[in-house]
Amino acid sequence: MENKRLQLVQSFIGKPFSGSPSPFAKWLSGTVISVDENSVEFEFTVRKEMTNPIGMLHGGVTSSMIDDCIGVNFMILGLENFYPTINLSVDFFNSASENDTVLVRTELIKLGRTVINFNAVVINQNSRKLVAKASSNLVISSIKIPD
Amino acid sequence: MENKRLQLVQSFIGKPFSGSPSPFAKWLSGTVISVDENSVEFEFTVRKEMTNPIGMLHGGVTSSMIDDCIGVNFMILGLENFYPTINLSVDFFNSASENDTVLVRTELIKLGRTVINFNAVVINQNSRKLVAKASSNLVISSIKIPD
Amino acid sequence: MENKRLQLVQSFIGKPFSGSPSPFAKWLSGTVISVDENSVEFEFTVRKEMTNPIGMLHGGVTSSMIDDCIGVNFMILGLENFYPTINLSVDFFNSASENDTVLVRTELIKLGRTVINFNAVVINQNSRKLVAKASSNLVISSIKIPD
Amino acid sequence: MENKRLQLVQSFIGKPFSGSPSPFAKWLSGTVISVDENSVEFEFTVRKEMTNPIGMLHGGVTSSMIDDCIGVNFMILGLENFYPTINLSVDFFNSASENDTVLVRTELIKLGRTVINFNAVVINQNSRKLVAKASSNLVISSIKIPD
Repeated sequence: MENKRLQLVQSFIGKPFSGSPSPFAKWLSGTVISVDENSVEFEFTVRKEMTNPIGMLHGGVTSSMIDDCIGVNFMILGLENFYPTINLSVDFFNSASENDTVLVRTELIKLGRTVINFNAVVINQNSRKLVAKASSNLVISSIKIPD
Repeated sequence: MENKRLQLVQSFIGKPFSGSPSPFAKWLSGTVISVDENSVEFEFTVRKEMTNPIGMLHGGVTSSMIDDCIGVNFMILGLENFYPTINLSVDFFNSASENDTVLVRTELIKLGRTVINFNAVVINQNSRKLVAKASSNLVISSIKIPD
Repeated sequence: MENKRLQLVQSFIGKPFSGSPSPFAKWLSGTVISVDENSVEFEFTVRKEMTNPIGMLHGGVTSSMIDDCIGVNFMILGLENFYPTINLSVDFFNSASENDTVLVRTELIKLGRTVINFNAVVINQNSRKLVAKASSNLVISSIKIPD
Repeated sequence: MENKRLQLVQSFIGKPFSGSPSPFAKWLSGTVISVDENSVEFEFTVRKEMTNPIGMLHGGVTSSMIDDCIGVNFMILGLENFYPTINLSVDFFNSASENDTVLVRTELIKLGRTVINFNAVVINQNSRKLVAKASSNLVISSIKIPD
């Protein structure tokens, strides 16, 4: 079966994912680095409006990048139903400054009929340090994903 | 001892917290509802740029609102040192649509010398439903907070 | 509809829950303090075999008490299907020593068709301090609970 | 510098860790499979008293095995001070039955002066399936570890 959603994201490799149907994803403005069903990688540039009072990437924005990339990884699985996120657990390690580039890499851990679990890591490409890691569970709903 | 940071936030009760030193907090644009050392309440209006592909408040933005309000609650404790967030764990329950108002309420659970823990809930003020709840731990650093 | 499982647990109020069908629950040996569909309370005595190298209640046993009480709270909801636990997130605050009594109190936060969420707290009844708090999500399975 | 605690655990490779100073670890009765500063592996046999009402490894015991192995991995770092666990977040995937063997493998993610973070996975050696994964943060205390 053709997986149009996977093909869509793949068509943006090396470019900002301007084809995202998510207004907030456009605000995050990630560039697609790699994408397959087991993992997606996006890079984000830390803009001033993403920072906290001490000029570092805001933990909420870090969490948002993770949550959004997990959402992309879910979408490209090609499933019929939405699986809303039921929890997101993030550990924070190192910071990122304005204009730094951070890479988010997701990893599909479990693809069950009812529950899907992802890990994710965020890496500061300038310092090469681990910014954060996360785990998230998604659970099936009755809502169909439109074509 | 005078707590200038508490007084600053209190001076914005009923108004958007435009005095926030956090660029991302300004993007979230929360209105201060109540504030004391054990709890702060902020209301946020869901703007289109905060939504996901199905037009609902993006889970990353929900997490951001929580993380930012916990940051405010920490700041008004009047401590000398920064306590960076080391983890944030969020459970998601119900959605919020564009133009809905959501209330974030934090709760100080533990104020230790080394570790500070907060709970938070997010309530959709239109549907009266629980949108999310969270727990977060902050740990002392050697960085002093400037006056 | 009669809720036999609720009645069973209620019949043990003030006594060790020796009627538990769970071998590990018998090892934990909790006393039923109160029980209704929104919350159960169990007390446990910290035995030496529950302690860590510094003579305190082992964090794993604390987590076990929480997980087990959440399991009881789930069971007394009277549902037809099992809802396996998909995640458990625990924050630890204060310790408990051998022979201390700890109280676990669960709280039903969301009772959805697919997902059930509980909070829990653990209180050291000797020191009156908060030992731990937790959140846990359970997700429906196709396995029926036998009568 | 000699690391006596590491040497102690290494001396039990292939055997139950009967030299553990932790009464609850003795109850869990794990066999040391491998041990270095970045990771320890222990195997546990699922005994009947470790099971839940449907005869499967109790989620609390799974959490306990994880927490205990993380404790061992911490101890062999050879640090002077205790770092109490401040949170443990576990995702559950597949079950294990009585008499199954499960392997717990920890992974040191961050070794900071103030915060130490570990990941862990639990694998059912009979089914080769992932039983659980976890993340845990430990934070420095002023308590010295006796020699």
